[in-house]
Amino acid sequence: MPIPTEAFFLDHRSELPLQLQLRRQIIAGVQEGRFRPGERLPSTRALARQLGVARVTVTQAFAELVATDYLRAQDRAGYYISDAIDLALDVDEVTPVAERFSWDAHLDDRYQRAQRSDRVTDWRRFRFPFVYGQADPQLVDLSAWRDCAVRALGRREFAPMTGDLYGEDDPELIDYIARHILPRRGIRARADEILLTLGAQNGLWLAAQILLRQGGDCAVEDPCYPGLREILSHTGAVIRPVPVDALGLPPEQIPLGLKAVFTTASHQCPTNSTMPVERRRQLLRLAQDRGFAVIEDDYEFEMSFAGSASPALKAMDRAGAVIYIGSFSKSVFPGLRLGYVVADARVIREARALRGMVLRHPPGLLQRTLASFLSLGHYDAQLNRMRRAYAERRAVMSTAIDTHGLSRAGGGRAGGSSFWLATPPGLDSARLGQALRDHEVLIEPGTPFFADRARGAGFYRLAYSSIPASLIEEGVDRIAQVLQRLQR
Amino acid sequence: MPIPTEAFFLDHRSELPLQLQLRRQIIAGVQEGRFRPGERLPSTRALARQLGVARVTVTQAFAELVATDYLRAQDRAGYYISDAIDLALDVDEVTPVAERFSWDAHLDDRYQRAQRSDRVTDWRRFRFPFVYGQADPQLVDLSAWRDCAVRALGRREFAPMTGDLYGEDDPELIDYIARHILPRRGIRARADEILLTLGAQNGLWLAAQILLRQGGDCAVEDPCYPGLREILSHTGAVIRPVPVDALGLPPEQIPLGLKAVFTTASHQCPTNSTMPVERRRQLLRLAQDRGFAVIEDDYEFEMSFAGSASPALKAMDRAGAVIYIGSFSKSVFPGLRLGYVVADARVIREARALRGMVLRHPPGLLQRTLASFLSLGHYDAQLNRMRRAYAERRAVMSTAIDTHGLSRAGGGRAGGSSFWLATPPGLDSARLGQALRDHEVLIEPGTPFFADRARGAGFYRLAYSSIPASLIEEGVDRIAQVLQRLQR
Repeated sequence: MPIPTEAFFLDHRSELPLQLQLRRQIIAGVQEGRFRPGERLPSTRALARQLGVARVTVTQAFAELVATDYLRAQDRAGYYISDAIDLALDVDEVTPVAERFSWDAHLDDRYQRAQRSDRVTDWRRFRFPFVYGQADPQLVDLSAWRDCAVRALGRREFAPMTGDLYGEDDPELIDYIARHILPRRGIRARADEILLTLGAQNGLWLAAQILLRQGGDCAVEDPCYPGLREILSHTGAVIRPVPVDALGLPPEQIPLGLKAVFTTASHQCPTNSTMPVERRRQLLRLAQDRGFAVIEDDYEFEMSFAGSASPALKAMDRAGAVIYIGSFSKSVFPGLRLGYVVADARVIREARALRGMVLRHPPGLLQRTLASFLSLGHYDAQLNRMRRAYAERRAVMSTAIDTHGLSRAGGGRAGGSSFWLATPPGLDSARLGQALRDHEVLIEPGTPFFADRARGAGFYRLAYSSIPASLIEEGVDRIAQVLQRLQR
Repeated sequence: MPIPTEAFFLDHRSELPLQLQLRRQIIAGVQEGRFRPGERLPSTRALARQLGVARVTVTQAFAELVATDYLRAQDRAGYYISDAIDLALDVDEVTPVAERFSWDAHLDDRYQRAQRSDRVTDWRRFRFPFVYGQADPQLVDLSAWRDCAVRALGRREFAPMTGDLYGEDDPELIDYIARHILPRRGIRARADEILLTLGAQNGLWLAAQILLRQGGDCAVEDPCYPGLREILSHTGAVIRPVPVDALGLPPEQIPLGLKAVFTTASHQCPTNSTMPVERRRQLLRLAQDRGFAVIEDDYEFEMSFAGSASPALKAMDRAGAVIYIGSFSKSVFPGLRLGYVVADARVIREARALRGMVLRHPPGLLQRTLASFLSLGHYDAQLNRMRRAYAERRAVMSTAIDTHGLSRAGGGRAGGSSFWLATPPGLDSARLGQALRDHEVLIEPGTPFFADRARGAGFYRLAYSSIPASLIEEGVDRIAQVLQRLQR
């Protein structure tokens, strides 16, 4: 494939000769890496036609560039970007860069500054990646997903799903969620009480925007999901952290004067504790009495493989005070970017209007593919496979943690995909994490989870969703060894 | 597939008998439509195990419900939701609804109020849909897309593309955009100057947020894309509309004291005019002198089938003042929800941080599928097919417009996918649009495009991206007839 003729432009009103303009464009393209050694240029005829110039103009420009080694002519086959370019050559041929526009007055970098910096994008290169929330490709039924994708790409499904859906969602997916996913959490919802989102992150963001953009106080669990604190820091809200205990968020510790309370009742993030029914009742009573909204992030409910699942907080929410956030990231795969919000129809209408303005809707083909994956039973089969694998990994890790004398700091009897651990007194988990990298082990230090980051130095998380059972024992052993070395 | 056992929950600490709780759940499920006539219930044994109760509790509950006609017992095959339910029966069996939570204090419905109300979601039911921005499935190479999707779902591509990419984009797609798409617009960009978005809507939103969330004045073309005005109304910005003329935005009319100017230079939305080079130079000079950012929405560049494409405004932007927004919605299909922003690396870093917080990243599998679709040449082939079809439709429509004496109000020599027309003096295009619906014709009245909506009453848009050439003549004929009737 030659470089397309559309890659070249001339300014016929410029004072620069056309031939020189063309030469400069090619040189700049090479120097900036857009044109690469060995690539073929369009024919002089085609390029002259595209540019509206005489063919000789193009021929001369090319000949000059052959002379300066930017191009190589191959008789009859045409012109190629030379393999022997010395990029230092001819720099002054390129138009000097104009004065740069000053972005200082425009950008305050607020989003970058509040951004989480603890994410490790190259976690795959670690042999022992105790990283949270990533998929294990071995557990995903790839061929079933492929079949569903192909089905969604059938002519009949294609037309409605490839159009601009404006604010709408795929009714088939909504119907399946309402009838088969939510009932497992004890939740009843009509279609107008459900909104699809780009994953749980997007659901949390939408809820925070519509409730707190204008300010007000809100409570978060401490520790909590760091991404939530990042989201809230860009609303006008004052964040009031409430320390959790072994039973999750203690309702009696919730301060007065709140607009909203964020909770991970069923599976506290990151400590894994489960809020008992009495606390849930109390929380909902307070919500009604004091008029605060409750945002429930039920981020990992499908992984409750140990013991019978408790219903969601939303299941007890007769008054409609709970905005429930679910996701397929853990149960299908994270890169899918599909989740949902369940709430009072009025909340959903407003969240839908905001979603429409920000991104319109999640891609239609993915919605339909997922609907098919769910309704054909692949989701259930995959969940069962994941639960079995996670149960095994959890058992192996639990034994290894005890054998090697690591110290548990959280609950998790209901399953999940991680353990929450404490470092020995005085040892900073960030230092532990750094030292472990040299031993091919990736852990998650506790600091980002806490309002007071210093408190997090005593904790770390080990997740097992991306590490095979066979490597867990050795990984935990390495952690124990490095812990010992650092304490000496 | 029976109703899953997980759909049922009991509260063992409640004072209500367990058997009654179970009955109420089933009745509520039926009344709310979650359980539907003919669906099979789980076996009494499986349900008793799930609920942790004696089997007789479940059996008794089921027997009661058979007696009241909610369930139907089929010997040996189990229990089914009855087909003969009178939903009015037994309403008082259901727990009365508690006092509803009051959302009034929490929601101001600001997003709903500013929302566009002119979108017609059921445009497919019109025989003559002159609707803008929707795909024509006949022009999309569905089988090529399917092949690429399957390719992206190969084991090797699957792992990296299904994970949580945090803030990253697919390097293959970014590389293709940088090397093959942008050069056609005369734009050079490095990977760190490009960000993928959920379509152009998302790109515009991100740019508006990082520049104008804190307020400041900005200029928009008048008329302009209504979604842009909706986005800006939720920043702190003051919107200054600048009337366009036959050559697009007149730079000398841009007021002083702006932070940003939004333009559709290459193809003014909705009038279709193209801004000449001299105006572009002047606009960029003003941007540099006065320090305002320019946001270029190049929403339809691939459809410049008539005449040779002019480069983007961004191509002349040596100083780096332009934030360029592109999209694959028009050229691949709208439901894909993939677009991109090209700007100074500093702008991109900030936009990436915001995108990460709002939605993480566009779905990985779609990114990889698109990369494959582009690099295998399907995109170019599809573009050529679209351009040919649109050129034909445009020619047919142009003739029909003249034959039937409709009045043109805009340019569009470079192509595009729509005509901008004027109604006869005194005739409101919204009234025209309403009357045409009875004749199976869908048009877009001009009001939503204008800052002063009343000015838009004199205009309407006819798009031809979703209507086959063979129906255009009859559709235009119907418009002309209704126009005549309304003028009588």
